[in-house]
Amino acid sequence: MSVDPTIARFLDPQTIAVVGASDRAGSLGLRTMRNLDGFTGRVYPVSRRLDRIGDRPCFATLADLPEPPDCVILAVPAAAVEDEVRAAAAAGAGGAVVFASGYAELSDPAGRMAQDRLAAVARESGMRLLGPNTTGFATFASGARAGFAEFPGGVPEGRRGIAIVSQSGAMGLGLAQAAEHGVAISHVLTCGNSSDLDAADLVAFAAGQPAATSIALAFEGISEPDRLLSAIRDAGKPVAVLRAGRSPAGAEAVRRHTGTDPHAGFDWNGGLAQAGAITVVRPERLVETAVFLAKSAELPPRAGQPRIAILTSSGGNGILAADAVAAAGLPLAALSPATTRALAARLPAFGAAHNPCDATAEASSDPNLVPDCAGAILSDPAVDALLLPWGKAWDAGQFGTLSDLARRHGKPLCLVWMSQWSEGPGAAEAEAQPGLSVFRSLDACCAALSRR
Amino acid sequence: MSVDPTIARFLDPQTIAVVGASDRAGSLGLRTMRNLDGFTGRVYPVSRRLDRIGDRPCFATLADLPEPPDCVILAVPAAAVEDEVRAAAAAGAGGAVVFASGYAELSDPAGRMAQDRLAAVARESGMRLLGPNTTGFATFASGARAGFAEFPGGVPEGRRGIAIVSQSGAMGLGLAQAAEHGVAISHVLTCGNSSDLDAADLVAFAAGQPAATSIALAFEGISEPDRLLSAIRDAGKPVAVLRAGRSPAGAEAVRRHTGTDPHAGFDWNGGLAQAGAITVVRPERLVETAVFLAKSAELPPRAGQPRIAILTSSGGNGILAADAVAAAGLPLAALSPATTRALAARLPAFGAAHNPCDATAEASSDPNLVPDCAGAILSDPAVDALLLPWGKAWDAGQFGTLSDLARRHGKPLCLVWMSQWSEGPGAAEAEAQPGLSVFRSLDACCAALSRR
Repeated sequence: MSVDPTIARFLDPQTIAVVGASDRAGSLGLRTMRNLDGFTGRVYPVSRRLDRIGDRPCFATLADLPEPPDCVILAVPAAAVEDEVRAAAAAGAGGAVVFASGYAELSDPAGRMAQDRLAAVARESGMRLLGPNTTGFATFASGARAGFAEFPGGVPEGRRGIAIVSQSGAMGLGLAQAAEHGVAISHVLTCGNSSDLDAADLVAFAAGQPAATSIALAFEGISEPDRLLSAIRDAGKPVAVLRAGRSPAGAEAVRRHTGTDPHAGFDWNGGLAQAGAITVVRPERLVETAVFLAKSAELPPRAGQPRIAILTSSGGNGILAADAVAAAGLPLAALSPATTRALAARLPAFGAAHNPCDATAEASSDPNLVPDCAGAILSDPAVDALLLPWGKAWDAGQFGTLSDLARRHGKPLCLVWMSQWSEGPGAAEAEAQPGLSVFRSLDACCAALSRR
Repeated sequence: MSVDPTIARFLDPQTIAVVGASDRAGSLGLRTMRNLDGFTGRVYPVSRRLDRIGDRPCFATLADLPEPPDCVILAVPAAAVEDEVRAAAAAGAGGAVVFASGYAELSDPAGRMAQDRLAAVARESGMRLLGPNTTGFATFASGARAGFAEFPGGVPEGRRGIAIVSQSGAMGLGLAQAAEHGVAISHVLTCGNSSDLDAADLVAFAAGQPAATSIALAFEGISEPDRLLSAIRDAGKPVAVLRAGRSPAGAEAVRRHTGTDPHAGFDWNGGLAQAGAITVVRPERLVETAVFLAKSAELPPRAGQPRIAILTSSGGNGILAADAVAAAGLPLAALSPATTRALAARLPAFGAAHNPCDATAEASSDPNLVPDCAGAILSDPAVDALLLPWGKAWDAGQFGTLSDLARRHGKPLCLVWMSQWSEGPGAAEAEAQPGLSVFRSLDACCAALSRR
């Protein structure tokens, strides 16, 4: 799917105007300005009251800007929104972000009508709209954090990241906080009431962004399910999907939240599967699944159920991993005699040269033990993927070596963080390795492996 | 079940001797000594080589100690273990911790025979044994960290905590790392090969400890299933159980790990349920379930499925919570008209005075909004429990107020941490509140609520 240039102009802007820019502590206007401090493009604060905000000169109205802005952020109350949307269209803006709530999510039909008027301005002018009732978006490569809330995320130099597409703003921000334990995030894109741009448009935009390796999509309602399925099918990169509003009570709450249609009668499971999406039901798994899909997308493809090997330095966690592999219906790899001999030669006498392979607590005094065993196991043609339950948060160990091994052998290496200190020492370092996928649940890992 | 005094003497010791005490960096002996720095009792290093370790004078042999030690830690190689076990028994020790591996977990029958000899010494002398192939135990109230590994845990002044009983040492330590995000832990008790003390004995011991509010048990094999079930039934406090080795491959790995019998043919599900245990299948849920059981044990009991109310400041997370409640088969509470009116009066016009109740992003600028809504909801007799999906890690907010409200109304208040920054700002503060149970998964929360 080629990227719509009007959407690309708006969501990857060179110029951003902030209507309602402010210097008042705690205000939406000031928080939005602060979020743009790292933006590499041009920022135009719009304020009738202020001459400057910090170093930046203000403009009284959108009509006064020196150039048509690619993106206008409306940090203004609902009552002022419609006039400013018209002013943005008149100024030739690429698009407008509308934070204000009180539109189609109200039970009062006046809310829907007000929203329809905004959509009509966009439709007639060709300007795009994000919202209303949205927290905005962040395109981290240029530092365009077009929202009032803190947008965690970003991608280390020379890497790519997952794009988070979330209809719900707060949910998108909560997912994006994965950045705090080392997940690389290229975009956070939220669409709220979806009066113009909806989840389908945002997926299509993210699909066209080279910085995005995969897409983590959380949505709840959309006008045309088939458009969303097409966007996923045509994305050309993996899409992990969390759908909210699966239950009757949930679907009812969708209408009160974003005023969008959950299409409860639609065959979402079938449609998403056919479109090639990997669906998750548990919200806590969306990000780790998207990261796994991104990292494993670079490995050679293979058909059939992957045969899993387990390597651990904690026998107990190895047993739990074997249980989880069995529960997921995946086969445990039958290690070749040569592999078993190689493991037995390297392990202490009380280790287990089997699958699961138990390197025992010796691993903590012999730092090459786990990588050496991993190398032997990954070399075995009977092994398609290696699952490494990681018992305790401590130093980053040999994560770089393990990652290199996995990439050299072209097989997924999943590190399942079994410690209850889920962001403890080593967690971010593991996440940063291109050849290691980190999960915080054995069965999430097995589910992802089975659907790769 | 009354506590066996021989076990209490050993696992809540006043005197600890360390055989193999050492001053060599990285050695088991030095690591064990360091772990006892905070012990409130007396420590006797035993070493033929050294006169003192730090401030402490050494004793050449166990026979030279000034008093019979309650607990002897054997930080010595397997070859030296049997002699030292005999020496400990001869010295009148209460019990001995055996770290060494290479016993019944070996395929070589010599390992089993060596272990049987240790058990015979214990049986004949009345001295208790923990291990072999164990990481030891920690009784935090006295600082008795009887192991070589770092034992995270402890209970803040004036509080109690969960007791972790884990057959696997590494798993026990990984579970205990929950302390790093604020979980109060009274004990970590690991039994490895269980030659004498097994999971049943450790559950019975923990049951008798006033510092322990509930028990988180992870086990894989035991000689007599019925003894374990009796210990759980008689515990007099909640027991959450994770059983490893449910699958054939897992059960086989149990024999290689601790040489114990997983009793694969036994009706564990039926037996554990009848004994009143709350079983979890996913390892990541054991600790949070045990904490929930402990905190909610102080609330008035009630019969039947709890009617759940949902309160959120993120509509999207409220929808997901409604989906999870439905998936768990729990009823959503039908709020009374009075509650709905009270909520509508307090919420912004674009909030949702329904169940799920959406306080919207207004909650971030109006810090009393969520507590006020929680108070209205908890007052409703149609509500048995309140589920609060917490969208983003940030400040601790009104956790104290929420906790007080929940306790005053005698209803569980579950905060489900939806942020991917799972140990971010506020997490430890929420955990510390006696009236708030923190979950990191909606469905774990619903499962726990349904089985309270």
